[in-house]
Amino acid sequence: MQSLQELYLDELRDAYDAERQLTQALPKMAEAASSPELRQALEMHLQQTEEQCRRLEQIFQRMGESPEGEPCEAMQGLIEEGQQILEKRDEADPEVLDAAIIAAGNKVEHYEIASYGTLCTYAEMLGDDEAKRLLGQTLEEEKMADQKLTALAERKINRRAAEG
Amino acid sequence: MQSLQELYLDELRDAYDAERQLTQALPKMAEAASSPELRQALEMHLQQTEEQCRRLEQIFQRMGESPEGEPCEAMQGLIEEGQQILEKRDEADPEVLDAAIIAAGNKVEHYEIASYGTLCTYAEMLGDDEAKRLLGQTLEEEKMADQKLTALAERKINRRAAEG
Repeated sequence: MQSLQELYLDELRDAYDAERQLTQALPKMAEAASSPELRQALEMHLQQTEEQCRRLEQIFQRMGESPEGEPCEAMQGLIEEGQQILEKRDEADPEVLDAAIIAAGNKVEHYEIASYGTLCTYAEMLGDDEAKRLLGQTLEEEKMADQKLTALAERKINRRAAEG
Repeated sequence: MQSLQELYLDELRDAYDAERQLTQALPKMAEAASSPELRQALEMHLQQTEEQCRRLEQIFQRMGESPEGEPCEAMQGLIEEGQQILEKRDEADPEVLDAAIIAAGNKVEHYEIASYGTLCTYAEMLGDDEAKRLLGQTLEEEKMADQKLTALAERKINRRAAEG
């Protein structure tokens, strides 16, 4: 860690590994969801996540760097928590399970909001306008995904789970 | 996971374990920071974190429940990533190290923002007004701590690290 450029590359690789892990985890979360709206939201976010991976690949390509780095341990922990929820699905109330999936999803989105927020700042400091544009696009998508999950939880799922 | 009440208790225990882990990690991050403002921000957040633990203990006490639950694996991953940064301190540029500490801190804060956001929603759904007040207080502190770190990064540290 001798320069911001080096830290930026580390953070990009961390974000890339996190997105890759997420493309594996999201289909399992979607499959376990009972609410069709929640399932659809997670499936749509899977498509976005794949596109976000491609944006990061574009950035690595322009930098002439490999996207491979250390595994993102924070995302491993977040996904492990999601996995533990899915393991309880057989004995869980479906609406409570949906609420738990949303809570796990919000945590994942917030990890990514923090990560892309940092990356946008670094891209700006380093004068990489094209990367900043791509990273900013992903940051906005992550914020929207978080809001969508929260709205679903507040409007429907938690209310039903509390009544059930 | 038969009821929202049960999920709420699980999430409270997850948040409590996360805060407890953080009280161990924050002093190490503060100690490694070069910028006096960053060090001060982390030390102040340690005090807040201790207070946030006490608020959760109050909630458990009112519920007649123990705060002990599964370890929060997401926070373990986040702290592990912070730890990896600190291990590089000897060969790192001090300003780049500060930028990396801030990035790790933002991720931790976002985990907590997601966690307390969910908890506030659950407390409201379950009609626990006193818990909602306590959790809302913590949520605001986490948002402020995140903004403070971001402002420090944008105004000073990353700029210096980019020039260095």
